[in-house]
Amino acid sequence: MTPPVEPTAAESDTGLLSPGWAGSPAATATSDAAYLRALLDAEAALTRAQWALGLAPAEAATAVTEAADGHPFDVRSLAERARAGGNPVIPLVADLTKAVGDAYGPYVHRGATSQDIMDTATMLVAVRTLDLILGDLGRTERALARLAAGHRDSAMPGRTLTQHAVPTTFGLKAAGWRSLVLDARDRMTAVRDSLPAQLGGAAGTLAAFGAYGASDPTELPATYAHEVGLRAPDLPWHTLRTPIADLAGCLALTAGALGKLAVDVLTLSRTEIAEVAEGSGGGSSAMPHKSNPVRSTLIASAARRAPQLAATLYGSLAAEDERPAGSWQAEWEPLRELLRLVGGAARDAVELAEGLRVRADVMRAHLDLTHGLIVSERLSAELAPVLGRARAKELLTRLAAEGKPLDQAPELTDVDLDPTHYTGSAGALTDRALERR
Amino acid sequence: MTPPVEPTAAESDTGLLSPGWAGSPAATATSDAAYLRALLDAEAALTRAQWALGLAPAEAATAVTEAADGHPFDVRSLAERARAGGNPVIPLVADLTKAVGDAYGPYVHRGATSQDIMDTATMLVAVRTLDLILGDLGRTERALARLAAGHRDSAMPGRTLTQHAVPTTFGLKAAGWRSLVLDARDRMTAVRDSLPAQLGGAAGTLAAFGAYGASDPTELPATYAHEVGLRAPDLPWHTLRTPIADLAGCLALTAGALGKLAVDVLTLSRTEIAEVAEGSGGGSSAMPHKSNPVRSTLIASAARRAPQLAATLYGSLAAEDERPAGSWQAEWEPLRELLRLVGGAARDAVELAEGLRVRADVMRAHLDLTHGLIVSERLSAELAPVLGRARAKELLTRLAAEGKPLDQAPELTDVDLDPTHYTGSAGALTDRALERR
Amino acid sequence: MTPPVEPTAAESDTGLLSPGWAGSPAATATSDAAYLRALLDAEAALTRAQWALGLAPAEAATAVTEAADGHPFDVRSLAERARAGGNPVIPLVADLTKAVGDAYGPYVHRGATSQDIMDTATMLVAVRTLDLILGDLGRTERALARLAAGHRDSAMPGRTLTQHAVPTTFGLKAAGWRSLVLDARDRMTAVRDSLPAQLGGAAGTLAAFGAYGASDPTELPATYAHEVGLRAPDLPWHTLRTPIADLAGCLALTAGALGKLAVDVLTLSRTEIAEVAEGSGGGSSAMPHKSNPVRSTLIASAARRAPQLAATLYGSLAAEDERPAGSWQAEWEPLRELLRLVGGAARDAVELAEGLRVRADVMRAHLDLTHGLIVSERLSAELAPVLGRARAKELLTRLAAEGKPLDQAPELTDVDLDPTHYTGSAGALTDRALERR
Amino acid sequence: MTPPVEPTAAESDTGLLSPGWAGSPAATATSDAAYLRALLDAEAALTRAQWALGLAPAEAATAVTEAADGHPFDVRSLAERARAGGNPVIPLVADLTKAVGDAYGPYVHRGATSQDIMDTATMLVAVRTLDLILGDLGRTERALARLAAGHRDSAMPGRTLTQHAVPTTFGLKAAGWRSLVLDARDRMTAVRDSLPAQLGGAAGTLAAFGAYGASDPTELPATYAHEVGLRAPDLPWHTLRTPIADLAGCLALTAGALGKLAVDVLTLSRTEIAEVAEGSGGGSSAMPHKSNPVRSTLIASAARRAPQLAATLYGSLAAEDERPAGSWQAEWEPLRELLRLVGGAARDAVELAEGLRVRADVMRAHLDLTHGLIVSERLSAELAPVLGRARAKELLTRLAAEGKPLDQAPELTDVDLDPTHYTGSAGALTDRALERR
Repeated sequence: MTPPVEPTAAESDTGLLSPGWAGSPAATATSDAAYLRALLDAEAALTRAQWALGLAPAEAATAVTEAADGHPFDVRSLAERARAGGNPVIPLVADLTKAVGDAYGPYVHRGATSQDIMDTATMLVAVRTLDLILGDLGRTERALARLAAGHRDSAMPGRTLTQHAVPTTFGLKAAGWRSLVLDARDRMTAVRDSLPAQLGGAAGTLAAFGAYGASDPTELPATYAHEVGLRAPDLPWHTLRTPIADLAGCLALTAGALGKLAVDVLTLSRTEIAEVAEGSGGGSSAMPHKSNPVRSTLIASAARRAPQLAATLYGSLAAEDERPAGSWQAEWEPLRELLRLVGGAARDAVELAEGLRVRADVMRAHLDLTHGLIVSERLSAELAPVLGRARAKELLTRLAAEGKPLDQAPELTDVDLDPTHYTGSAGALTDRALERR
Repeated sequence: MTPPVEPTAAESDTGLLSPGWAGSPAATATSDAAYLRALLDAEAALTRAQWALGLAPAEAATAVTEAADGHPFDVRSLAERARAGGNPVIPLVADLTKAVGDAYGPYVHRGATSQDIMDTATMLVAVRTLDLILGDLGRTERALARLAAGHRDSAMPGRTLTQHAVPTTFGLKAAGWRSLVLDARDRMTAVRDSLPAQLGGAAGTLAAFGAYGASDPTELPATYAHEVGLRAPDLPWHTLRTPIADLAGCLALTAGALGKLAVDVLTLSRTEIAEVAEGSGGGSSAMPHKSNPVRSTLIASAARRAPQLAATLYGSLAAEDERPAGSWQAEWEPLRELLRLVGGAARDAVELAEGLRVRADVMRAHLDLTHGLIVSERLSAELAPVLGRARAKELLTRLAAEGKPLDQAPELTDVDLDPTHYTGSAGALTDRALERR
Repeated sequence: MTPPVEPTAAESDTGLLSPGWAGSPAATATSDAAYLRALLDAEAALTRAQWALGLAPAEAATAVTEAADGHPFDVRSLAERARAGGNPVIPLVADLTKAVGDAYGPYVHRGATSQDIMDTATMLVAVRTLDLILGDLGRTERALARLAAGHRDSAMPGRTLTQHAVPTTFGLKAAGWRSLVLDARDRMTAVRDSLPAQLGGAAGTLAAFGAYGASDPTELPATYAHEVGLRAPDLPWHTLRTPIADLAGCLALTAGALGKLAVDVLTLSRTEIAEVAEGSGGGSSAMPHKSNPVRSTLIASAARRAPQLAATLYGSLAAEDERPAGSWQAEWEPLRELLRLVGGAARDAVELAEGLRVRADVMRAHLDLTHGLIVSERLSAELAPVLGRARAKELLTRLAAEGKPLDQAPELTDVDLDPTHYTGSAGALTDRALERR
Repeated sequence: MTPPVEPTAAESDTGLLSPGWAGSPAATATSDAAYLRALLDAEAALTRAQWALGLAPAEAATAVTEAADGHPFDVRSLAERARAGGNPVIPLVADLTKAVGDAYGPYVHRGATSQDIMDTATMLVAVRTLDLILGDLGRTERALARLAAGHRDSAMPGRTLTQHAVPTTFGLKAAGWRSLVLDARDRMTAVRDSLPAQLGGAAGTLAAFGAYGASDPTELPATYAHEVGLRAPDLPWHTLRTPIADLAGCLALTAGALGKLAVDVLTLSRTEIAEVAEGSGGGSSAMPHKSNPVRSTLIASAARRAPQLAATLYGSLAAEDERPAGSWQAEWEPLRELLRLVGGAARDAVELAEGLRVRADVMRAHLDLTHGLIVSERLSAELAPVLGRARAKELLTRLAAEGKPLDQAPELTDVDLDPTHYTGSAGALTDRALERR
């Protein structure tokens, strides 16, 4: 298969502003070239579907498929000619028809509207990218499972509103990260399997296919979906955009799930905390000692952007008429950007999770930073029956204000102040969470 | 059951700026009073759950439940005292403990953190509101099904990029609206059934329950969930916010699904189009003739707001530590507002769909506005084999430019120009769509 | 002046979910009652303006003003009746007309459209709330100026990508916070002074005022603006929404400016860092030692929500026709919410800035955490001329990897490793920044 | 000047999904190549500024400038190597240093941090793109001024909530569009002139410049700003992001201002309305009669996306520490995308405004669609004094319900029902608006 012609001019983008996804598998899977590939796949499948239903000769199906696979198309020229009609399918159909030649050119795009091809291609790109993301989510969750199991009993400070609260374990924290990744994986898998092909013709009635001789045009969408490898649509969905909303939802969730992992790593990596470190931090030319948590930074950056991209997609649900003027066009770039951002973040998450260095000794040491106060909840519970609730609280408040280590307080000599003994059900919860597959 | 004390002071809101939901069932279900009710339900269930596991005496469970149900709480005072600690549970626990009295007061909120109660209450409010919304979505889809069946063959112009394209039917349009409503219903139902109770204690380890004597604290969340009527959580989810994201997704989809209906009705209601009219439009004091599509306007307004509210919720997924400083607090109002907006829109959609007046005669008349050009696609298809593709297109372009009615063109005397004969598979697609339940 | 009737029913909101603004001055200034007050002010000013131009008798102006000021209106009833026509002005005009009585009732709202009153009232509420916010920004910046001046030379670690980079000073940090607050103040002041009254009549042509006898209706908007205390509009702006966009911009900037302060305080408050602490942190019932940075948390929460609220307002710029169906209605709640959030955040910022406890000794101690590496940039610069750039870097990288204190490295015995000597121009920059008023 | 090496590989983007800006001047001005150019300009200016202050030899300034201007850099390689450290400046400094050579390489980037260069380059790209946009806004407002003046008295239906309300003029409508464009222009001009260079070094203290010998490092930012052609900064603004927020605000406003024009043209272009048409609509292969309002569609699409991109930028204001981990990185792509979208929309607006075909005769004819009811407001005003307000309204309501032409109602024989006589002050308002320059 000859690859499409590649862009060469000055305004091409290669990801210079996007270290979060540049060079990632998702970048390739969502490039202009990948969209062009998918658009051509959609056109070829359409002609083959018409052949399968007796509406086009086998030679036409072959000719269109071969041209779509082998002819060099100029993606930049297509992009610039897309401006006139407002979408890239119009110039692509012209070029493809020409490439197929006089004999079978009329079978190119026959009966379809631009949106049929554009939506189908978008679903192809989405499926192909989601598969890559799902692979990386799998690697990430396995690495997190190893971290959770390996640190099942590594006690560390549980932090709430930035302050030490009570002890927890790194195992439970990693198990929580993993459960979010599994939530994302489950929703994404369901969406991936639901994405439909699009076929409706000019206004979603399939009328042109009848005019071209189909006895039952409603057979065509399923045949087409089969040819192109997507689910058959229930109805033409030119302005019924549930698939786009479903993608928006699962991608925003995934970005946020990985974002949770990232903000925790960023916090735990701080110079003063240093309980974890990225496997290979980013360097600094002027400050040789610095090792920046770059993977987390880039994931966190993606998590900041994804919700607003999803919002634009949800906003496009309110699409007027049979095909809309503005809302459809507003979907294209945000959906691609979401796929890329999440794809890049998923790849970063693999590297982050697989390479994370965990310093259980530092965690343990931090449990003593508050000189016993991190188990004050336990003391409250244990002292209340003895002293009464009010006096117990009073005592602890006084000790906290004095700032002295609690193990030096004569009132507490008989109490177990070891913070590693107050991790509650963290271990059991971790075990249970790891049972999920 | 004595109702909670109601607010009376000057800064209370009653929906003056929110005609989209003021007075709707969802407004009541999401009011401060409803949240207070749910917070109290959550507290009472917590004590009962501890009783069920032998951690508290039956009298405590009874005392807390009775105080939660019968004591008057001052919601405004709670709101203002919430400012100090940053959430309303802190002052509520103080008031409830006092109301329960010295004997059983210590069993109030025992072992829990504020977020356990707040999240559980939020899920209760969500379930209660979703049930109302699902009821209204059901009424809406049934009304739309009647419209689709009744107008299965009412031909009308299909419009794309604001222009007449090819004919369609009002039946297919209504069936499409309904399919979006069913998509929303299906996703919302799944989310509704998945919403979990929250219980983890200070840092999600359930440690305090052990300190208070539980032999296996991991039994408590399921018992608690059962008492409060929610799904049992897999893990404490203080910073694993999938339930919030799921709610955001299904509510944004629903807003958009209803928004599609609304923007179509707004378009078709325009003075120049007037193919449909709302059952009872809004009036104008100065212009007695006006009948504004108010229900559609308010739904469209909700659809414009929902995506950004959902974005804030998705953005809160990246919540640091065991309980976060900012992202959790940023969920409360946007989630309530989403529930309200969608609840109001669903109620408006019932009225819109049940009352919609459809003018099939006007639709039919509009098919002739382009003097036959609305079937030019069919002519292209039929003339191409006779004249060749190029000459056929040339002919049609010339006739379109001349602006003369096509039925007066001598070249087209033998062609069926009746636009009602060119609705393609609209009827069959409508039938199929109506089979979905 | 008799206050309007207050709401009493169950769905009133009092801020239970909004500790960020409940009880703040902005809460009162943006309540339903405040909007009702502003709507009545707008109606009364309209009749007075017509009197001023000879279009209404003085008695009418007096009667409407007195009814607007003294009659009790039922805000809840207005809210529910707003549902029919889609805005609260319609029922309010009915109630006000009745309150004024038969003689002068016809002069109520004469010639205006609902949007004239609603927009004007919204601008009144905005101006009144911005004045409160500007007051709190002033207090905040003065407190920050004191912190900056007082800690001009308090050296602390400069942190980048979460890691110690080079030293900075707390003075420079506080001066930076202040400069953001001043930026917000300057933009907000300009917007505050620019907000116009709205007057155009049904479709923005002022035609009705001519029908009611005005010789030059274009005089009326300025007279009206004068009466109501707002800027005179250049054109009716029913669908020219620059004032709304300007408000969105300055409020989103302010939320973000205060958000920067908040996230820094949250970071510096962490148990492991503890370089600052809020004056009165929020407590925890179960953990007596905890002192949560609540003010920062609530400000950070507001900063997470504001951008998406602003986005909805910017999205409403694309308002079709002479008055739109949906985009205008979508402005009301988000704009109020923005005003409230920012108003609450500004009040929180006052408390935060005035009460912040700064621990210069802890800052100083943290400069030694990296055992000298925090001045490695300086070493690079100073060693390079001596050793050559490559060898200097090699040396520092090796020393960093060894983890030994740099002051024990024989190669560095002659170098000044005191981090407080490497704060660069922090002091001079602080001085300069404090000159800004 | 040798241009930078251009990308050639498969993942380059050329705008295939972006007909709104592909091929526009803004596309070129915001391409990866344009950012690379700006990054190199920033580096060269930095060395020249150090020379100007005696910190580097003239030969170094010359060598760096020549390498920056003449050496071929591989943008794709930079993009992929940016992944390691999280920004493209790190690999660029390596390549530039190598290109400059051993003698003067050490003067490349000396004392700066990556963000100094990245922010400065971003401001350069912004200024260059804003200049293009301002040019197109100028052309647009001039074309709109011509439309407004030419159609000062072209009466047409004023439409509110989609319904005919009272007459207005196309002149006033066009004058309103223009006033929004002027608002956008004024705000954008102010922002353009305010954008500062960035220079602070590792943590914003300018310390390294002192280490490299500067006696007063605070002189350097202004000198640097002068060299690079931007405003001198008041403080290093690594985490004081007012310039980014200002850009977000003026770009979102501009997108919305043009969006208002677009949604009006889309409405007025509808087949049933057809009061305006784009100069050269987009075609359809299958439907030769179609002429789609493509320019409006693409502008409307941009207006749907811009608010959420601005929201991400506003969200990045809350940037922690001296340089943040995530929020800064989240600015790059959204700001570029906003610049592009608005740049493309401004170019589309030029074509739209310059080419718009206005059909005053159709507008005039539509005034009669309601058979006189479009002047019912006037009738209310004129009949009320004669018949009493209640009877007048009753009469008009009855006539409206009967649906008969009002000029056949015997009660109205003496009243002027000509809708062109009820355009109020539209002409005067248009004149006044056109005085604004």
